[in-house]
Amino acid sequence: MPRIVLTGATGFVGAHAIPALQARGFEIHALGRRPPAAEVAFHPVDLLDAASVRDVLDAVRASHLLHLAWYAEPGLYWRSAVNLEWVAASIALVRAFREAGGVRAVAAGTCAEYAWGPDRLREDAPCAPATLYGAAKDGTRRILEAYAGETGLSFAWGRLFFLYGPGEKPGRLVGDAIRLLTAGARFRTSPGYQRRDFSHVADAAAAFAALVDSPVVGTVNIGSGSAAPIRVILERIALLTGRPDLIDFGARPLSASEPASIEADVERLHQEVGFAPYYDLNSGLAHTLNATARRCGGNGGHF
Amino acid sequence: MPRIVLTGATGFVGAHAIPALQARGFEIHALGRRPPAAEVAFHPVDLLDAASVRDVLDAVRASHLLHLAWYAEPGLYWRSAVNLEWVAASIALVRAFREAGGVRAVAAGTCAEYAWGPDRLREDAPCAPATLYGAAKDGTRRILEAYAGETGLSFAWGRLFFLYGPGEKPGRLVGDAIRLLTAGARFRTSPGYQRRDFSHVADAAAAFAALVDSPVVGTVNIGSGSAAPIRVILERIALLTGRPDLIDFGARPLSASEPASIEADVERLHQEVGFAPYYDLNSGLAHTLNATARRCGGNGGHF
Repeated sequence: MPRIVLTGATGFVGAHAIPALQARGFEIHALGRRPPAAEVAFHPVDLLDAASVRDVLDAVRASHLLHLAWYAEPGLYWRSAVNLEWVAASIALVRAFREAGGVRAVAAGTCAEYAWGPDRLREDAPCAPATLYGAAKDGTRRILEAYAGETGLSFAWGRLFFLYGPGEKPGRLVGDAIRLLTAGARFRTSPGYQRRDFSHVADAAAAFAALVDSPVVGTVNIGSGSAAPIRVILERIALLTGRPDLIDFGARPLSASEPASIEADVERLHQEVGFAPYYDLNSGLAHTLNATARRCGGNGGHF
Repeated sequence: MPRIVLTGATGFVGAHAIPALQARGFEIHALGRRPPAAEVAFHPVDLLDAASVRDVLDAVRASHLLHLAWYAEPGLYWRSAVNLEWVAASIALVRAFREAGGVRAVAAGTCAEYAWGPDRLREDAPCAPATLYGAAKDGTRRILEAYAGETGLSFAWGRLFFLYGPGEKPGRLVGDAIRLLTAGARFRTSPGYQRRDFSHVADAAAAFAALVDSPVVGTVNIGSGSAAPIRVILERIALLTGRPDLIDFGARPLSASEPASIEADVERLHQEVGFAPYYDLNSGLAHTLNATARRCGGNGGHF
């Protein structure tokens, strides 16, 4: 049974990655400060403490690594200097993994690495991050790809687009809309004509599991391949909750830095990795709403 | 008197940067494991120990930073994983400097960041490093530029081309040739038709001093702007030493990874920074030979 080190196992994608990795036969070793909810081997360690991380990796001697952990505080992570600590931590982690005998590593990137423009984003599109977060991820990838090339590590970079699903933190679009509308509160938003590529988090996690279980190297977009206007997504949530009256489109301006469209080209993910998503937008939103209602007793208790 | 933190003060460029910074009125605070030869304030610290570096920077509270330190062991630094430690150290250093109130920082990059091709390299040419060293520098620059943009730090990146001059370590072209020829030993080399942009190290150090003393931001090439065939450089050394018989051109093959030409465009350095070099190739090589002869008693004692 191949042994995999998983970081970010308590995070949004990581929690969903555990069953996807188990389904593929991996023996999971989660590293981080808090134990994951699922029952897997857990090694408590501060991922920003490179010496301790190295000790754990030397003891675990995993063949595979899926590195999802990063600073992700909604609203803050785009511009925070904490991103710099995760650059250092990510590079030290992959190096220590390789030096402990690891052979296959996948880490999470972001669509914020790209120069956002009107076109569908293929993996070879130019990178020109508009944010410190995007630049930190972009720089980390460039360095790790060179390190992998030098040391013979099989390395891939899963570039995540937008996500929704059960367990989202407050401050994110779909989760906030569901919680407010199910609580009978108003949701104030932009006119909503910008198109974004959203995936259900369980699909994104399954895509990471498929990627780390494949021999594909380099960057692979992890998205739906089909961007929808934010307006369409919210109207669907309004329909599912029966409260279209609660959405105020245009109550907030769209930030000037928000591009008209962000859409993944998912040819590599589908053809080379062989991944197919389980949810489409309608079924994924319905699942998220049902799961949220079950968790919160239908009263939007997270707010 | 503006206060500047200098790293790499005992290195090849750093040792020459001290007089150049002093001439511009900087109060120099050198950080590193070993004290520089020149009499400046010295703070002993391991630059790879981010917490200790932060303590020193908090105490020094400099307005300027010139970061030249990096792993530079000849023959090894192109491919070594130690480059990864200097990524983390450099990012942590610039952040701690900024958070201690610093306003202007310059760090050393390399022509190995560029995609080497037949053309003269201008700062906006594409970067596609062929080595781990180049990728580590390239990634560090991208991340630090984003960090500087986010925090209002005035930041420039001096992209070094090839160097020669007094105090070169063994394993580098000009120093090795001078030492062997003055010792009466044979120098075996490639046919030597590849063109390289060489500067005297004192000029490169003075260019860094001019850059940190300017408001210019972004990448600035630090080179001569005029590449010469290696063969011409070695023939000049042969002439100066009087031993043209000792050079075996073609005794070694040129590595397939060596491009035909690496030449800096120095428009930014000359026009925007206002820097002009003191040496041309002939005077610079003559100065190096004389300085080496004085140090070694003319007997090539370093070998």
